[in-house]
Amino acid sequence: MDDVRVIQIKESVFADNNKDADRLREQLKAEKTFLLNLMSSPGSGKTTTLLALAKELEGKLKWGVMEADIDSSVDAETMLKAGVPSIQLHTGGMCHLDADMTRQGIHEFGTKDLDLVILENVGNLVCPAEFDTGAVKNMTILSVPEGHDKPLKYPLMYETCDLLVVNKIDVMEYFDFDKEKVVEYAKRRNPEIEIIFLSAKTGEGVEKLADWILKNTKAWIEG
Amino acid sequence: MDDVRVIQIKESVFADNNKDADRLREQLKAEKTFLLNLMSSPGSGKTTTLLALAKELEGKLKWGVMEADIDSSVDAETMLKAGVPSIQLHTGGMCHLDADMTRQGIHEFGTKDLDLVILENVGNLVCPAEFDTGAVKNMTILSVPEGHDKPLKYPLMYETCDLLVVNKIDVMEYFDFDKEKVVEYAKRRNPEIEIIFLSAKTGEGVEKLADWILKNTKAWIEG
Repeated sequence: MDDVRVIQIKESVFADNNKDADRLREQLKAEKTFLLNLMSSPGSGKTTTLLALAKELEGKLKWGVMEADIDSSVDAETMLKAGVPSIQLHTGGMCHLDADMTRQGIHEFGTKDLDLVILENVGNLVCPAEFDTGAVKNMTILSVPEGHDKPLKYPLMYETCDLLVVNKIDVMEYFDFDKEKVVEYAKRRNPEIEIIFLSAKTGEGVEKLADWILKNTKAWIEG
Repeated sequence: MDDVRVIQIKESVFADNNKDADRLREQLKAEKTFLLNLMSSPGSGKTTTLLALAKELEGKLKWGVMEADIDSSVDAETMLKAGVPSIQLHTGGMCHLDADMTRQGIHEFGTKDLDLVILENVGNLVCPAEFDTGAVKNMTILSVPEGHDKPLKYPLMYETCDLLVVNKIDVMEYFDFDKEKVVEYAKRRNPEIEIIFLSAKTGEGVEKLADWILKNTKAWIEG
């Protein structure tokens, strides 16, 4: 598709990313835009979950998606086809986004009129968790085929996230996945983490995620 | 388990990792040890594939496994229980291994008497592909639930690898996974890449991977 806007992100020039992330949050607060940073392994179903959300959020708020990838623009194309305003950020090999890189996307996208922007970060459980993007909340998706032990192996991701979505529950019976253990391991990393089980493919549980997003967006833009 | 040896890896002091990787390969050549670097997303089945290999390789060569993880020692425990000499490398938050970090593992493990060492790298499709570990060959595992589009999104991983293993073919029917497309996309990144389809869970195809490993180990230690 010719109409996908692709932004080539430059490396950050700011030494203190945490302060820079706070500045971006202040800007988003003033503009009444809720930024949600979505992180996961490759192939856990980030884009499919956003597609499922599109149906649930329709007519309820103005939103858009920033798709970050090292290469390729397939995700932004997919979201655009579903009628969701989207741009593709190319990180030029970088394994994560920081606050300045996120700001470049926000600026190019033009998000002032949006209530909600979801940033689909690079598929990677390690590096994205180390960099505050300036998002108001962080969420991670763990898909059933990846196994329930991931919170043990990627601790920072779970410590950083406000919400864990367990995706692909429709294939639970074909995998050795223990729902109680994943809750136990995730809470061990972060006792405050909220957990939603869903299947982006069948739609089961997606309304719970939509409710969580609507509630948190409202709290941010009205708070 | 108390008997898992855990090595805390230090950051590399060498400026030129490529030269350092060549030095490590020379050492391994002199010691007649084949080092295979295994990379993939979290949860694609690296450890399960190594367990399946253990049965196929038994009695055919002397081998061991270095399990790299940010935290936790569950993988080395699993391999030790299966009777495979293993150590756990903790990267202290680092998202990849370079040649010097690999050498620290090789040194602590004591691999001179081994024909084959498999390095299970940190679960991450981005950063590990950027650093030559000193391995003789690189392989990556892509599991069916991750989707056939991954070679489009993580080009360097596929350019770097000699072998692509497509794992979890036993659940192929439950996912929208196109075998022909994954071959096409992987070869687009790397026309020389070899591809093996298998299920570490059922054992289907694992003998082909064992044959590939035996052939390449023999070529290295006798070449």
